[in-house]
This record gives sequence, structure tokens and C-alpha cells, in this order.
Amino acid sequence: MESLNLPKKVFLKEVGPRDGLQIEKVFTPTNKKIIMCNLLSECGFDDMQFTAFVHPKAVPNMADSVEVSQKIMRKPGMMYSALVPNKRGYINAAAAGIKKVEMTMSATESHSISNLNCNTSDSLRTIQECLDLGLDIKLIVGLAVTFGCPFEGRPKFERITSIVNELNAMEIREVGLCDTSGVADPRQVYDFSSRLIDSFPDITFYFHAHNTHGTGLANVLAAMQAGIINFDTSIAGLGGCPYAPGASGNLATEDVAQTLKYMDIETGLDIDKLIEASKFAAETVGHHDSATLRAGKMNHLVECGPVMQKNNRKN
Amino acid sequence: MESLNLPKKVFLKEVGPRDGLQIEKVFTPTNKKIIMCNLLSECGFDDMQFTAFVHPKAVPNMADSVEVSQKIMRKPGMMYSALVPNKRGYINAAAAGIKKVEMTMSATESHSISNLNCNTSDSLRTIQECLDLGLDIKLIVGLAVTFGCPFEGRPKFERITSIVNELNAMEIREVGLCDTSGVADPRQVYDFSSRLIDSFPDITFYFHAHNTHGTGLANVLAAMQAGIINFDTSIAGLGGCPYAPGASGNLATEDVAQTLKYMDIETGLDIDKLIEASKFAAETVGHHDSATLRAGKMNHLVECGPVMQKNNRKN
Repeated sequence: MESLNLPKKVFLKEVGPRDGLQIEKVFTPTNKKIIMCNLLSECGFDDMQFTAFVHPKAVPNMADSVEVSQKIMRKPGMMYSALVPNKRGYINAAAAGIKKVEMTMSATESHSISNLNCNTSDSLRTIQECLDLGLDIKLIVGLAVTFGCPFEGRPKFERITSIVNELNAMEIREVGLCDTSGVADPRQVYDFSSRLIDSFPDITFYFHAHNTHGTGLANVLAAMQAGIINFDTSIAGLGGCPYAPGASGNLATEDVAQTLKYMDIETGLDIDKLIEASKFAAETVGHHDSATLRAGKMNHLVECGPVMQKNNRKN
Repeated sequence: MESLNLPKKVFLKEVGPRDGLQIEKVFTPTNKKIIMCNLLSECGFDDMQFTAFVHPKAVPNMADSVEVSQKIMRKPGMMYSALVPNKRGYINAAAAGIKKVEMTMSATESHSISNLNCNTSDSLRTIQECLDLGLDIKLIVGLAVTFGCPFEGRPKFERITSIVNELNAMEIREVGLCDTSGVADPRQVYDFSSRLIDSFPDITFYFHAHNTHGTGLANVLAAMQAGIINFDTSIAGLGGCPYAPGASGNLATEDVAQTLKYMDIETGLDIDKLIEASKFAAETVGHHDSATLRAGKMNHLVECGPVMQKNNRKN
């Protein structure tokens, strides 16, 4: 009997202020976003993707990205990163002083057209153009619908690897395997992740977890077994998939953090502060998808002993 | 790179009509229970725990167990089993023609007193007394709070193994590792399950999954890797834990079945019929905790090819 192959430490990147809020139809007041970010800054993250630099017609709730980036508190040593969909966003993020951006591109052409209004080859060219600008900003790439696309189904592994190969040639050193629609299954996540890690030793792969079909945490477990230690999660489970409007959102940060704690996997996160931030986020948008908020803390850490005590209630 | 150690086939025992309904405070009309069972009988289960023989003061919603067992349709070859908490329930179940019962007992003394009003040693004695009756009825044992108790915390493995040792000596051949409060974590589930399977080769262990803290499917994944292929799940995710009243219930059968299908693990279950039964169950009790009902089917099976097509939308 061997034990599960699990890491000692895992890094959760908080994406709630970006991926969680971008789907909200009601504009989240800027001051609420700032409070949310500030609460999250206290939780112990190394990295938080706190906004997106994207055209406000495309994502109205990210229209205040410059103001938010100016007004949030910055915890020393913590990275405050942003998402961008194109070169304009990249330039705007750099102008706002962002030091790390995630460029999003799609694994499938249909999703690329639908979500980004360009082909995947255009996205790859855009990434190279951004790199060629020589700006002092780290560029990572999130590959949307890696595990399944609402239009085209499941990408074959060869398709994913061909895209990653292009990114590798451009010396992109962090690539996100994004389960955008939450249709990944654990076997697929393990398979894709382990093969990519084997094929591209210079790239750090992170798994972007959604919980649309309830598979988020199982997928995280499979990804960890494959060697992934970087995950995108969202406070209060905010976020979601526009093709499954009533479904669960992103995987809730506090649910993952709490489970990992019980698995003796270090995250550096403070569960109580996560719950505080989660409550604020949930109140702000008026909903949540957090098992921790529903059920409370898993506070059953005390161990009871091996001896069956007789309390002599009967006999 | 190795693949995850996963089984080819898994058996889900449906426990919704028992564990799902027993927690409902409003009495579920008998005819609704019968329709629910009949819909579930069409789904492809080998075994359904459809009721409990328990004092109606303790579990009012199971007061019609005899009538339900008389009136449901019986699919040839399918087992219709029941839960019992004590010898009286065992005798009543046998009198009602039940051929397989699960005797529930607790892994901790506090939960035993709270839930069954007896010590664990009393439960073990009861099991032997039931066996000594020589009735034509298969007796399996579900060990509640195996992974964590609301009163005593996490049982040590030695405590679980000492109870299973007693059951083994009584020639009990099926033992349930029940995550009654939904506080198990995947590492613990793997650890307990694999060690028990190693220690007791004559016993088939099954995992009774709850989703209180969102960990249900991840725990199932870990249990499968440990060698467990039998799981208790509940249609529509009905059920729950009285100590976490707002939390999710048991793990939803249709969510597990759908995920396993995508993992190429056979269950023999018909997803569409599960969804039909789930909708009926959810309408009957007025709530559900089913990702499948929220998000719809994971119908993204079509694979898209490795070649990045140019659709020439741009350029």
C-alpha cells in the first residue's frame, strides 16, 4: 500500500476579484472591490489576480480596473496581477503599474472567436508582440477551455500540446490549464497535466478550477497527484460559466484551503480570514457557492483514541 | 508518468429514499416515495437502500417502511435493501421480506449514544444477536462517523480497525466506511481505505459519501484509488448532517455517475433516467444539491482535433 502522491505545499492564486466578479451583471461598486481586495490581501496569498484590463463593453464590471489598482492596499511581497485579453489590455495594465499579467487565449477556435474575437493563431501572435514590447511585466498565459469547450467538446491532447509548444518557444514560463466550463474530469486532468509536465520541464503549469459540475476539488486532487502545485480559485466560489447560468462558479478558495489543511498540505492561508473575506464577497454580490459558508468550518481536528471506552450508560 | 490507479467498474448503491429522506422534517407522502423508488429502479442500480426499519419517533419519515416495501415495483435481479439501527428493526425488516439490511453503528461512543442510544459494544453485541437468529437475510454493517465525529473529532485508525476486527470475527463481509458528517478528506479516505483493505481481505468495504464540505467527489476519487469500488450515493444529493443544517447533503448519485462516465469508469447507470428520478426527488422534497440539476449534463464529449484550423476571420 502506497500513499497518494501529494505535494507538501500548494499555492492558491486568488482570482475572485477578477474571474469571480467579471460575470456579475450588476456593477460592483469600486469601494466594495477595494475592500474585498484588501480583505483578501490579509489572507496569506502570494498572488492575487485582482482585476482585468479589458474593454468595458466586453466586461462592464472591470471598467474601474485602473482606479482599483490605484486604491487597493499592497501587501509587501505579494503579487497583484491582472488578466488581459489582448495587446491593448497588456499595454494598459503595464501603464497602471501591473507587474504580472495573464494573457488569456483559447484552446479551441470556436471559443477563441466567441470569447476573444480572434483565432488562436492571432492570440499567439499577440503574445509575441507583447513580449517584443520589452516592458517590465511578467507575462503568463491562461489556456481557456483546455479540458472542454462549449462549442467543440473536448480538445485532444495533441491540440493542447501544440499550443503549449508555441508558448514554450516564446519562453512563456507559466501556463494555465483552465477548466473554463468546469467540464474536466479527474482522469483527464491527471492525464493532461502529467504529460504536459513531462514534455515541458521549463514551464510551470497551473490549474484553473471551476466547479460547474461539482468536480472542482476532485480535479484539484488529480492535478496535485500529477505534480501541479499552483491553482486558481475564487473566494466564495464566485464566478461561473456563461453557458451554465444556474451552475456553481469557480472553485471556492476557502473550500480548497480548508480541505488542504486537513490533508496536511500547506497553503500559507488563514482560514478564518478567508471566511471573513468570503462573507464580504458573498454579501457584496448577493450569492455564493461556498461549502464553507454553508456548513461552517471543518473543525473536527481532535482525535479520539483507539480504546472503546465504556461509559456504562447501559448494563 | 503513470496513470491514476482507477477501477474499470464501480457500483453505486442508491440510498436516497432512505438516507436522503430520513432527514426531511415534512413527511414525504408514501405514494411519492413509491414513485421515487420506481423511477430509481429503472436507472440500472444493483442495490437500492430504499427505507429504514426504525422507530417512527426517531425517524418519522420512515414510518411507512412496511407499506413502501410492499408497494414498490421490484426489478428482477436488483436488491432492495434497508437500514436498521437495532435488533427490533432487523426483525421487522426480515418480517417485511427484506433480504439485505445494513445495521448502522458508530465509530465513536459519543455518536453512538447520541444517534443509537447505546454503546458501540452494545451495537456489536446486537449484530451478533441478529446473526444468531439465523434468519435468511444478509447483514452488512455501516460504520458511522468513521472519518470524523461531531463530538469527538477524528477517530484514530486503530479505533476503526479494532471495530472492524470484531465485525470480521463475526464474519460480516461488507462494511461501510461512512463519512456521516462529511468531514473526511481525500488523504484520510485513501489512508483508512487502503489499510483496511490490506488488513481484511475477506471484507468488501464501501464508502458512504456526504458532500457537507464539498469534498464528496474528491473522497470518492481517493477511495477508488485505494481500491474501493462500492459507494453509497443519494439521488439529487438529498440527505445531510443534522449538525450542519444549511449544508449540502449526501453526494448526488447523478453527479458521481456522470463524472465516472467521463472517466470511462462503468457504473451501468442511465444518466437520463437518473436525471428524471433526481428531478422528481427534488420536486418532492422541494430542494436538491445536484450539480447536474443546476448545470445540466456534461455533454461535451465530442473531441476537436489537433490541427489549429484557420477560419480566416481575420487577415
